Formats: sequence, C-alpha cells, structure tokens
Amino acid sequence: MKTIATLAISLILSAVLYADHHKEKAAEAAPFRHVVMFKFKDDATKEQVTAIETAFSALPKKINTITDYEWGANVGKENKNQGFTHCFIVTFKDQAGLDVYIPHPAHKAFVKLLLPSLDKVLVFDFTAKKN
Amino acid sequence: MKTIATLAISLILSAVLYADHHKEKAAEAAPFRHVVMFKFKDDATKEQVTAIETAFSALPKKINTITDYEWGANVGKENKNQGFTHCFIVTFKDQAGLDVYIPHPAHKAFVKLLLPSLDKVLVFDFTAKKN
Repeated sequence: MKTIATLAISLILSAVLYADHHKEKAAEAAPFRHVVMFKFKDDATKEQVTAIETAFSALPKKINTITDYEWGANVGKENKNQGFTHCFIVTFKDQAGLDVYIPHPAHKAFVKLLLPSLDKVLVFDFTAKKN
Repeated sequence: MKTIATLAISLILSAVLYADHHKEKAAEAAPFRHVVMFKFKDDATKEQVTAIETAFSALPKKINTITDYEWGANVGKENKNQGFTHCFIVTFKDQAGLDVYIPHPAHKAFVKLLLPSLDKVLVFDFTAKKN
C-alpha cells in the first residue's frame, strides 16, 4: 500500500509540475510587448523621477491585462541610447490587452503625473517572436 | 518490479521537471536586457532587411552567453516609435554576458551585414527589475 501511495503522489506531482511548466511556456509563446522609453527634462527633480518610477510599477496591480512588467535604467556603454534613460517593458497577452491599458483610468493618471517631467518618449509595440 | 520501475521513472521525471522549472525561474530573476532598435535606409531592399532579421536570429545559437532572444516589427498605433521599425531584445545573465557578445566574431559579422542598410540605431541596456 505504501508503495502504491508513493507512486500515486509521485505521479500527481509530475502531472502538476508538467502542467505548470507548460502553462508558462504557453504564456511565453508570443507575448505582446509594449516597450516605453523616457528622457526626462533637465529640470525634473530626483523626487519627480522616483515618483514616476513608483507610479509606473504600480500599474500591473491596477490593470489586469498586464501579464508581465519590468524596467531599468540605461547602463549601456555604447552611447547609442538616443538620450533615453529609462526603459519599461509592459507585456500583454495580445493587442487587445494593450487596448484596455491605454484608456484605463490608472494609466491616464500615470500619464498626467509623467507629462510635466517628460522631455522625450519612445513607444514600440510588437508581438515577440523567437526567430 | 514493474511498480518499482514505474515509481523510479516517475520520481526521476518529477526531479527533472522541478529542476528545469527552477532553472527558468532563476534565469528570470534579474536578467540583463540588451534592447536594440533599427530604422533602415529608405533604399534598403526587402531582401536586405530579411537577411538582417535572419542573421540576428541566428546569433543565439552562435554566442552562448545569450540566454533569451526575441524580436518583432512595430505595430504601435501611437506613432511614437521615433522612426524605428524593428526591436530586438537580447538577454544575458549579466553585463559580463553582453561583454562576451559585443566583440564576438559572429556579432561582428552581423554588424558588417547590417551597417550598409542601417539609417538609425538605438541600444538600451538594463538590468530588469519588477518594481
């Protein structure tokens, strides 16, 4: 009986991990990326920039079509960043996810906070493929 | 004996899937992103652009510090793409991975193929954080 129980638990564990693994793979298959870069005005304060970073990072909890989110400051050595200092990658399942995000009140409030400090923006949307 | 064999196989399968799952999670923790955007010259041909896309997509098999790679053409409706039509996100474990990539002969050969068709480039490197 013990052997059968161990076997059963082991098989269930395999099945659960395999399903989880495949779920992640499927979500990664062809995500829709919304790449956003900012260059702030010379007179934007450190406090204003930090407030914008914090507000952007709060959006994934407010807009449920966001499936992934990450950001960082440029550390490139090639000086080819066209003046942009901040890059944010907001991921959706598809274009429809972005179409919910753009007019969402939480996103509009973020843009309102952003604009007074913004010098230049870049937005690039694409369905990510591997080759 | 059959039961023991099944149990053994099942346990090995669990262990392998669990390890693979955790490996992916670890690689995702704070990946180093090398974001590259291209605007091609007006006289670049479709064949030249396709050759560049194909050559870039071949790099992950040639340079082993690349841990992830994806790309896509801009489909943004906001017209804020600053003229860039192609975005590539090359991922490394860390800055050291990029430092192997840049001077690698395969990367140099790719740049040689790219330059005659290139109008404008953007490169943005960052360590991805979630908030």
